[in-house]
Amino acid sequence: MSSKSPITFSVVGREGEARAGILTTRRGLIETPVFMPVGTAGTVKATRFEALEEELDARIILGNTYHLWLRPGVDVIRACGGLHRFIGWPRALLTDSGGFQVWSLGALRKITEEGTEFRSHVDGSLRFLSPEVSMEVQAGLGSDIVMAFDECAPGKATHAQARASLELTARWARRSRGKFDELQREGRDTGFLEKVEQQVSGAQALFGIVQGAGHRDLRRESLQRTMEIGFDGYAIGGLSVGEEKSVMWEMVDEVAPLMPTESPRYLMGVGTPEDLIEAVARGVDMFDCVLPTRNGRTGQAFTSRGKLNVKNSQWAEDRRPLDESCPCSVCQRHSRAYLRHLHQTGEMLAGILLTHHNLAFFLDTMRRVRQAIRSGDFPKFRREFIERLSESGE
Amino acid sequence: MSSKSPITFSVVGREGEARAGILTTRRGLIETPVFMPVGTAGTVKATRFEALEEELDARIILGNTYHLWLRPGVDVIRACGGLHRFIGWPRALLTDSGGFQVWSLGALRKITEEGTEFRSHVDGSLRFLSPEVSMEVQAGLGSDIVMAFDECAPGKATHAQARASLELTARWARRSRGKFDELQREGRDTGFLEKVEQQVSGAQALFGIVQGAGHRDLRRESLQRTMEIGFDGYAIGGLSVGEEKSVMWEMVDEVAPLMPTESPRYLMGVGTPEDLIEAVARGVDMFDCVLPTRNGRTGQAFTSRGKLNVKNSQWAEDRRPLDESCPCSVCQRHSRAYLRHLHQTGEMLAGILLTHHNLAFFLDTMRRVRQAIRSGDFPKFRREFIERLSESGE
Repeated sequence: MSSKSPITFSVVGREGEARAGILTTRRGLIETPVFMPVGTAGTVKATRFEALEEELDARIILGNTYHLWLRPGVDVIRACGGLHRFIGWPRALLTDSGGFQVWSLGALRKITEEGTEFRSHVDGSLRFLSPEVSMEVQAGLGSDIVMAFDECAPGKATHAQARASLELTARWARRSRGKFDELQREGRDTGFLEKVEQQVSGAQALFGIVQGAGHRDLRRESLQRTMEIGFDGYAIGGLSVGEEKSVMWEMVDEVAPLMPTESPRYLMGVGTPEDLIEAVARGVDMFDCVLPTRNGRTGQAFTSRGKLNVKNSQWAEDRRPLDESCPCSVCQRHSRAYLRHLHQTGEMLAGILLTHHNLAFFLDTMRRVRQAIRSGDFPKFRREFIERLSESGE
Repeated sequence: MSSKSPITFSVVGREGEARAGILTTRRGLIETPVFMPVGTAGTVKATRFEALEEELDARIILGNTYHLWLRPGVDVIRACGGLHRFIGWPRALLTDSGGFQVWSLGALRKITEEGTEFRSHVDGSLRFLSPEVSMEVQAGLGSDIVMAFDECAPGKATHAQARASLELTARWARRSRGKFDELQREGRDTGFLEKVEQQVSGAQALFGIVQGAGHRDLRRESLQRTMEIGFDGYAIGGLSVGEEKSVMWEMVDEVAPLMPTESPRYLMGVGTPEDLIEAVARGVDMFDCVLPTRNGRTGQAFTSRGKLNVKNSQWAEDRRPLDESCPCSVCQRHSRAYLRHLHQTGEMLAGILLTHHNLAFFLDTMRRVRQAIRSGDFPKFRREFIERLSESGE
């Protein structure tokens, strides 16, 4: 282990709470605020890596520990040289801890102090995930940013439920930190790089997660206890899980200003384009969400004038692109009429093209957000962006 | 109508029966022998047009009249400016007549002198396809090469059955020619181009189809009667439809040398990589086949050492590309282990990447065939290529 940190983060522009920054990882620079496309099983669904690297210029994508651990399994990925080499993606990767996805299984899982027991959705086998197992798997994946193993309370958890969950998360965070440091010392990180930019160490970074459901005091306490352990970055977890949207903003308003200014802040699993803008305005730097990819496969496009469902018959002969102000390769080449035809015919290209456009829209929006913050135009950008979203194409 | 022809064809290299040529269409030059990826419903399945244009450099793709006529319908495509504009493909398009696909419906269709009645696989409605309807639809699509409406006899048709089918095909070919010319005069071709290369007229080209099942004398007669009507190119139809492979080669051996040397020769629906090489050796210039795309979606890769099924467990940790001598972007980036994982997980990217590699292999093989003919190395190339195919990777 080097004494240098695994990542560095510096704020290069600020407007109100909104901030533009540079996150340096062992696999390159990432301008923030940044949206991370979700690559669940080692693939951003329906998307070639060439598109992610070239036109979309995604600098970091997310992998799901739960899915990769179950299939193909960490042994296969280790044998193939870690997740980057296995999937053919040389840029930065963040992996979640698997905790949230096991939590989503609901009745199929059993949580104890030690960890979580559950049945695999792949083959029904009984599996056990804990802070130690999660850290081992994430070291085997060799992701650049590792997430601590946490417990997520339901969006509408009572104060007592949320406190119990917070306490467990705090203990698990400490165990995650301990095991993570041990694995780094043992050289178990398959993604370790000897040669990196001067500022960073070449090792994995570890982010802690703030929980506390919809309770301000618990969110503050969770943040405090996570900061006491000490992480390379801090995430707000357990939001966008069934609570009212107003509760989500209340929690972000409460927690974000108290988070360390010199570390990246990551709002997990959020959100729609308007959510991203609103969270940036509250000081958040990093996001991930399945919306652009998942909705792309079911025929929904995100545009600067709101959502557009390609299956609607009104587009049958419409020669306009999905979004007339979008510079992406799909909007430059294809019409709503064609995309509707592909969708109606069940052609794979429908999902491929809609996913591409949606990712382009999310990533381009974030590019414009960064530019707006750096040029001091973010409030105007935010107002106009949100206004335009309601001019739905439908 | 201009007095210039809609296409020109010139042979620029020859070795034995094999020939390398230049086919000039209103939408650019096509070097032959050429493989046309199949774009059934207005999309080469799982493939973006950017990949076809750039890396794969396909100069012509095929569209299926039957599928496009049923969905989205020719009215929609006409309203969108013809098939090129509708799908966003500026290069050459060949459309089949719909005859073969209706024929494939088997019991669901009824053939009379007038045409073929059948039930749509999309909505069960009763539809009627005839030489006149096919020509009208293909004018509405505005494809660059139109195929005459023919009747296909089963591969093992008796002499009497095959003769009856041949006679019907001859009458339908004459009706196709008549209706096609009328539509061109009336300006019904949505793909008509005012500005084209000096040699060509800007109008659609029409190809005739030789039938006759597995009977040499009937094949010769069918060719003779097709040539008497006169077409811009000549296709061999009704092969690879259930007959023995030896019968296919017998028919190609019989017919190809008698086909006009100054027109392109198209062997419809063929075939495997070895079939393409063998047909080129017999003087064929154009091919189409669903194998690279269809098999790509079911996990089968074509490689220089034979077929490879990505789902085999032996590839689970295999870091080699599908084909170690393949320069395509999939082989440059991804391992068999990763492709197997994608396939086993049911990820769309499996089909996307395998389709891309397969198309790259087919198109690259044809590039090498053209080069070999032009440099006088075709017999050696053919021998080595066929030998290597048996060194299966499995």
